[in-house]
Amino acid sequence: MRRILKAAILGSTGLVGIEYVRMLSNHPYIKVSYLAGRGSIGKPYGEVVRWQTIGQIPKDIANMEVKPTDPKLMDDVDIVFSPLPQGAAGPVEEEFAKHGFPVISNSPDHRFDADVPLLIPEINPHTIALIDEQKRKRDWKGFILTTPLCAAQGAAIPLAPIYMNFKMDGAFITTVQSLSGAGYPGIPSLDIVDNVLPLGDNYDNKLVKEVSRILNETKRTIDQDNISLGATTHRVATIHGHYAVIYVTFKEDISIEKIRESLDSFSGEPQKLNLPTAPEKPILLTNQDTRPQVYFDRWAGEPPGMSVVVGRLTQINRRTIRLVSVIHNTVRGAAGGGILAAELLVEKGYISKR
Amino acid sequence: MRRILKAAILGSTGLVGIEYVRMLSNHPYIKVSYLAGRGSIGKPYGEVVRWQTIGQIPKDIANMEVKPTDPKLMDDVDIVFSPLPQGAAGPVEEEFAKHGFPVISNSPDHRFDADVPLLIPEINPHTIALIDEQKRKRDWKGFILTTPLCAAQGAAIPLAPIYMNFKMDGAFITTVQSLSGAGYPGIPSLDIVDNVLPLGDNYDNKLVKEVSRILNETKRTIDQDNISLGATTHRVATIHGHYAVIYVTFKEDISIEKIRESLDSFSGEPQKLNLPTAPEKPILLTNQDTRPQVYFDRWAGEPPGMSVVVGRLTQINRRTIRLVSVIHNTVRGAAGGGILAAELLVEKGYISKR
Amino acid sequence: MRRILKAAILGSTGLVGIEYVRMLSNHPYIKVSYLAGRGSIGKPYGEVVRWQTIGQIPKDIANMEVKPTDPKLMDDVDIVFSPLPQGAAGPVEEEFAKHGFPVISNSPDHRFDADVPLLIPEINPHTIALIDEQKRKRDWKGFILTTPLCAAQGAAIPLAPIYMNFKMDGAFITTVQSLSGAGYPGIPSLDIVDNVLPLGDNYDNKLVKEVSRILNETKRTIDQDNISLGATTHRVATIHGHYAVIYVTFKEDISIEKIRESLDSFSGEPQKLNLPTAPEKPILLTNQDTRPQVYFDRWAGEPPGMSVVVGRLTQINRRTIRLVSVIHNTVRGAAGGGILAAELLVEKGYISKR
Amino acid sequence: MRRILKAAILGSTGLVGIEYVRMLSNHPYIKVSYLAGRGSIGKPYGEVVRWQTIGQIPKDIANMEVKPTDPKLMDDVDIVFSPLPQGAAGPVEEEFAKHGFPVISNSPDHRFDADVPLLIPEINPHTIALIDEQKRKRDWKGFILTTPLCAAQGAAIPLAPIYMNFKMDGAFITTVQSLSGAGYPGIPSLDIVDNVLPLGDNYDNKLVKEVSRILNETKRTIDQDNISLGATTHRVATIHGHYAVIYVTFKEDISIEKIRESLDSFSGEPQKLNLPTAPEKPILLTNQDTRPQVYFDRWAGEPPGMSVVVGRLTQINRRTIRLVSVIHNTVRGAAGGGILAAELLVEKGYISKR
Ligand SMILES: NC(=O)c1ccc[n+]([C@@H]2O[C@H](COP(=O)([O-])OP(=O)(O)OC[C@H]3O[C@@H](n4cnc5c(N)ncnc54)[C@H](OP(=O)(O)O)[C@@H]3O)[C@@H](O)[C@H]2O)c1
Ligand SMILES: NC(=O)c1ccc[n+]([C@@H]2O[C@H](COP(=O)([O-])OP(=O)(O)OC[C@H]3O[C@@H](n4cnc5c(N)ncnc54)[C@H](OP(=O)(O)O)[C@@H]3O)[C@@H](O)[C@H]2O)c1
Ligand SMILES: NC(=O)c1ccc[n+]([C@@H]2O[C@H](COP(=O)([O-])OP(=O)(O)OC[C@H]3O[C@@H](n4cnc5c(N)ncnc54)[C@H](OP(=O)(O)O)[C@@H]3O)[C@@H](O)[C@H]2O)c1
Ligand SMILES: NC(=O)c1ccc[n+]([C@@H]2O[C@H](COP(=O)([O-])OP(=O)(O)OC[C@H]3O[C@@H](n4cnc5c(N)ncnc54)[C@H](OP(=O)(O)O)[C@@H]3O)[C@@H](O)[C@H]2O)c1
Repeated sequence: MRRILKAAILGSTGLVGIEYVRMLSNHPYIKVSYLAGRGSIGKPYGEVVRWQTIGQIPKDIANMEVKPTDPKLMDDVDIVFSPLPQGAAGPVEEEFAKHGFPVISNSPDHRFDADVPLLIPEINPHTIALIDEQKRKRDWKGFILTTPLCAAQGAAIPLAPIYMNFKMDGAFITTVQSLSGAGYPGIPSLDIVDNVLPLGDNYDNKLVKEVSRILNETKRTIDQDNISLGATTHRVATIHGHYAVIYVTFKEDISIEKIRESLDSFSGEPQKLNLPTAPEKPILLTNQDTRPQVYFDRWAGEPPGMSVVVGRLTQINRRTIRLVSVIHNTVRGAAGGGILAAELLVEKGYISKR
Repeated sequence: MRRILKAAILGSTGLVGIEYVRMLSNHPYIKVSYLAGRGSIGKPYGEVVRWQTIGQIPKDIANMEVKPTDPKLMDDVDIVFSPLPQGAAGPVEEEFAKHGFPVISNSPDHRFDADVPLLIPEINPHTIALIDEQKRKRDWKGFILTTPLCAAQGAAIPLAPIYMNFKMDGAFITTVQSLSGAGYPGIPSLDIVDNVLPLGDNYDNKLVKEVSRILNETKRTIDQDNISLGATTHRVATIHGHYAVIYVTFKEDISIEKIRESLDSFSGEPQKLNLPTAPEKPILLTNQDTRPQVYFDRWAGEPPGMSVVVGRLTQINRRTIRLVSVIHNTVRGAAGGGILAAELLVEKGYISKR
Repeated sequence: MRRILKAAILGSTGLVGIEYVRMLSNHPYIKVSYLAGRGSIGKPYGEVVRWQTIGQIPKDIANMEVKPTDPKLMDDVDIVFSPLPQGAAGPVEEEFAKHGFPVISNSPDHRFDADVPLLIPEINPHTIALIDEQKRKRDWKGFILTTPLCAAQGAAIPLAPIYMNFKMDGAFITTVQSLSGAGYPGIPSLDIVDNVLPLGDNYDNKLVKEVSRILNETKRTIDQDNISLGATTHRVATIHGHYAVIYVTFKEDISIEKIRESLDSFSGEPQKLNLPTAPEKPILLTNQDTRPQVYFDRWAGEPPGMSVVVGRLTQINRRTIRLVSVIHNTVRGAAGGGILAAELLVEKGYISKR
Repeated sequence: MRRILKAAILGSTGLVGIEYVRMLSNHPYIKVSYLAGRGSIGKPYGEVVRWQTIGQIPKDIANMEVKPTDPKLMDDVDIVFSPLPQGAAGPVEEEFAKHGFPVISNSPDHRFDADVPLLIPEINPHTIALIDEQKRKRDWKGFILTTPLCAAQGAAIPLAPIYMNFKMDGAFITTVQSLSGAGYPGIPSLDIVDNVLPLGDNYDNKLVKEVSRILNETKRTIDQDNISLGATTHRVATIHGHYAVIYVTFKEDISIEKIRESLDSFSGEPQKLNLPTAPEKPILLTNQDTRPQVYFDRWAGEPPGMSVVVGRLTQINRRTIRLVSVIHNTVRGAAGGGILAAELLVEKGYISKR
């Protein structure tokens, strides 16, 4: 039997932090042993956390004390999950890696370091090999692995099987994202009631950059030239769940049925290895023409929120299709993706009892 | 001086009806003289109307009685505006046309009759000539003219100058539309709080069909082969204002600057003729990368709500651009478009004092 | 061991219906065996239901077929839960009772029949004796028992221990209720975005009438003259959970601490009998001055949503206090209350294997 | 003819600031001549302001530059409106008063200085005499006058005529306030979607304290002992407009008709003096049992938003009534109230051309 790994959650009171707590509270071999925070240090987790998710705060964890974000206090920790805000995350994560911790980060700060994986376990698992280079080059005992922007995952997951198997030309993405994607306090309410809030060029470009990289790192069955991506990103008054409409163009005539099959049969190493947090199907297809919907589909899959729901698969013309996806941004797009990454790393020998 | 034309507003208590009332209450030569309704006949308009728009109910109109939708009671009416619901509109509008009334309809029922114009006055004004054929063929003294689906106008208005001047290949549209676009009671609140509601294939196809026809009816400076359109339509919890993200592809390399110029300089007969309800610019361009926004831009232009705000003009690749539009659905997309159509018809001699 | 009772759920596709399905799907001795509906008869439940609640549709139930609302088809059913709409419920429930079924109704139609209990199991359990009279008078083998208006329960549950133990003079209630309380389609979205919707005199009066009766049926430790209640009811754009602010006035000076104790120690027969759906505490007190909140407190207790959260307990003057409550309207206020009632009836011998 | 007074607006880019700009843009004798800000100094007002109100930014003002909040730069300014945030306002306003400016403040910082009026012009106009004492004691050439908390005005305006004319015992207030009342960025969106947010003890107490003082400063027709007030305050996802439910208790039997008359006939010095910004009726009564509503009633009166709409007037018992009010928080509750105060001060000789 596998030994229990002890996990520290940085930013444990944040919107991603709470999903780590929730999902790990019944994990077979990863156990929350350290709750790190900033503003509420010394207080019982259950009293200070904004539990903006399903279920109740696990009783045992509610009584744990929030502690400083300090590697020196974490002697018996085997793995560190880091959903820290942009800017704050960067130096902290380096410090933890230097101290020998495997750091699974959901923050953007190290996503484009050349030697840091940007992992979606079903799509580019071989990129975890970058960790070897990272440790060597940086002379670290620990390491940093990152997960992509939540909205990038909502696009990359359905695009990956398409990109791997068909001669894609481009993808034109429009997202309608939830408020929790911006953290707390995040978006001011006066910007969102009776409004649609564009996130601007910066965010659009970030999404394009991340999706491009992830698609480039897939194992393709065919040669792909450069593809061209466009993204237009927004928030509306939804709490959880990012919605994306994607028009995909191809260099040759395509068949919608073949696309459907490639989406439907998509699975990866997590499924092969039967990782505890792996959904049976990373992509759940729906045929109803008014689904997926954010409210009804964000918690899809088992564990809840780990499957991306894809629908509205439609042929626009011989070389263009349209599809729509809903992803749970703080689960599959953050904490759940982080736990799945950890499981893969454990399986591959990158994380063990220290 | 022009003589005052007396207008009847059918469906005057509806969401489009109230915009007719508001906009006509200070029109130079069209005056509301008959308020038709269904449920509130015999009651004072001001007591029964849900005035879900800006400003107060005009005092004089508040006291007018809501009357039956019956052409025989409208002897002194010169023009009939018909924002009636789909299904109800069709036969009623025919009856009015038979009785000799010019009927400006915002409803879908007659939009695709071969002899009925589907008019955006800046784009396809020459199509009003269909009225001659219509009167002849149907042996009517009056006639029916329609305005397009509000969401189709939000796409067609920015696409028209592009289509007229550049070799377009296709356009991939994603809309995020407001609740008022569905009338009252319309969308159930439980479908929209914390959700994004897809409108489904039917609505998507309607939008594509209407935009296609309108673009086909533009006066082009260049030859155009068939273009390919795709649409994915939604509602969110906004009250007024339809938002659209449009990716446009071209058959040849294009310059974003030339596109910008064509949008910026776009104007049509309403502007040339200086029609009272014509906005100076049908398209207002914004350069801010977080605009247009539904809340802040839907009332743009003068008269308020008559200009479509276009922004986020961006080159995605050599042959693809992205733009975003906000249109006030019940104003430019319905009542305002209807009044502008009436003004054009008056100018062209199709409507006069009976 | 107790034998399994088979339950039919009328209106099983409605907002209350789905909570019955969810809560009964792991009930120790009540099992869903018949799903009755109206619009979706013959279709698999999982395909037609709007599952606007937590968790996934239980797999086995998803495949069950929706069937007609007809007692003659329910031979092996032992108990009927009836969350049917007002008007529709009345005659249907009588028919089922005549056919010998115990009917637990959440609808208003029979709430004020003189021989029908209006039950909150913790408050007026002795009123189930009305069933004997009902069966006798009506010569029925079955019977009808009702549960109160959801909003009435949110007020009555905290008021009951106060009324039982202190000389109340009156209570002035203001509710801010959720959309699901009105069923589906219910409240039009255009009435609720950027708005607070008053429910009007009728609803206010209904709430007062039900709370009055329930308080009158408590077992008091003291004599009570007539008390005076006022209610002002509203909806806002929340999905589940009714919020109420209650000012309570007394005929003598009171101590907030004694009130707190009476609320905190409140429990009833369901707790004494350890009924499976009874929350350990029907009232959960919070001391935080920004709680309870609808979003964070509606699922309180175990089973989730069965406890009413009460807070903001404050002395306004010597004879006036203020408190605030949050109740899950479709759980404690409907399906959960109905199941708890059923469990009490089973315990008391009113329901058994037919 | 009166000479034009030049006004500076501090915090001119804020939610109250924009209403000052809007309302003064067509004021007969007060003209915006200085727009003070903090973050956007040096930029054109029209480019930086979030214009979250009706109408367009007045053209001439859009081009004005935002300037520092510095009395030394305002040589030709005759009057200073100060909607600065709590904390920031206090010292700045003192500095301006020392420099000889009449300062009309909407901020809380000086509201309870013993020599500073807390003015609702219709209710306690005689309190402007405190200004004489203030100038003397503080040896200032200028002075500070404050307007109450927006939510306090929504309660105080309907309570004033009742308190003046009837033997009130107490008032139990529940508010449901809009987001703009908290300024920008204000309330985080994640706190308000699908939620009702209590404002807590502090805010409740502030409301009680301000309403108490204002009622105490009315001119009563009868003796009043102390009355007892309670308040429970909340925000929901409305943009503008504060809603309040008020239960009023009396020391003697009252007649709802007399109360109605006193509300309906309520008017004060602004009406007598025919001040330009005075609504004809400070209180507009509605008899519909689902009105007032925030969306439909917040802009009531002329100038729009200057009347408080009161309805649901109901007798609960012989000595208790219920009423409901809607006030436009940034207009009557802030900028409009400030302008009305200025007009009264001008009329009384406290402000003149410097
Ligand atoms: N939200 C999503 O959907 C999502 C998806 C993918 C990736 N991410 C990424 O995940 C990260 C966290 O996002 P979130 O939404 O959870 O944010 P959040 O709700 O704002 O939470 C941030 C957490 O970090 C803590 N924190 C902030 N500054 C800190 C510092 N200097 N040192 C230590 N702890 C600090 C906060 O503690 P206090 O509460 O005490 O301030 C809180 O626990 C971000 O980098 C974000 O980009 C988020
Ligand atoms: N809303 C938009 O943004 C928009 C934009 C473009 C086009 N349109 C089109 O405009 C039309 C009206 O839309 P709306 O949003 O104003 O709808 P709405 O708010 O539902 O109003 C419908 C109006 O029609 C009246 N009416 C309904 N059935 C009638 C009948 N059988 N005979 C006579 N009058 C009847 C109603 O009277 P009662 O109130 O008495 O029932 C009401 O005045 C629709 O065809 C719609 O497709 C709407
Ligand atoms: N919602 C609450 O919070 C709450 C709380 C306490 C009590 N209640 C009471 O519970 C009842 C149900 O409320 P709800 O919110 O669940 O309503 P709902 O969402 O509108 O659901 C109504 C259900 O009844 C079915 N139905 C409607 N008319 C019928 C008929 N004539 N014959 C058979 N079935 C019919 C519907 O089937 P189709 O879907 O096929 O139309 C649906 O399953 C109401 O009486 C309500 O007052 C509700
Ligand atoms: N909102 C209401 O309904 C309402 C009603 C009654 C009273 N009030 C009171 O009115 C005041 C303003 O409220 P608001 O809602 O307008 O707030 P807001 O939207 O937050 O605006 C605040 C304004 O003050 C400026 N500002 C902030 N700090 C400053 C400083 N240190 N020095 C100079 N300028 C500064 C801001 O400039 P930047 O934009 O450059 O930061 C902005 O123009 C508050 O005291 C509030 O309590 C508000």
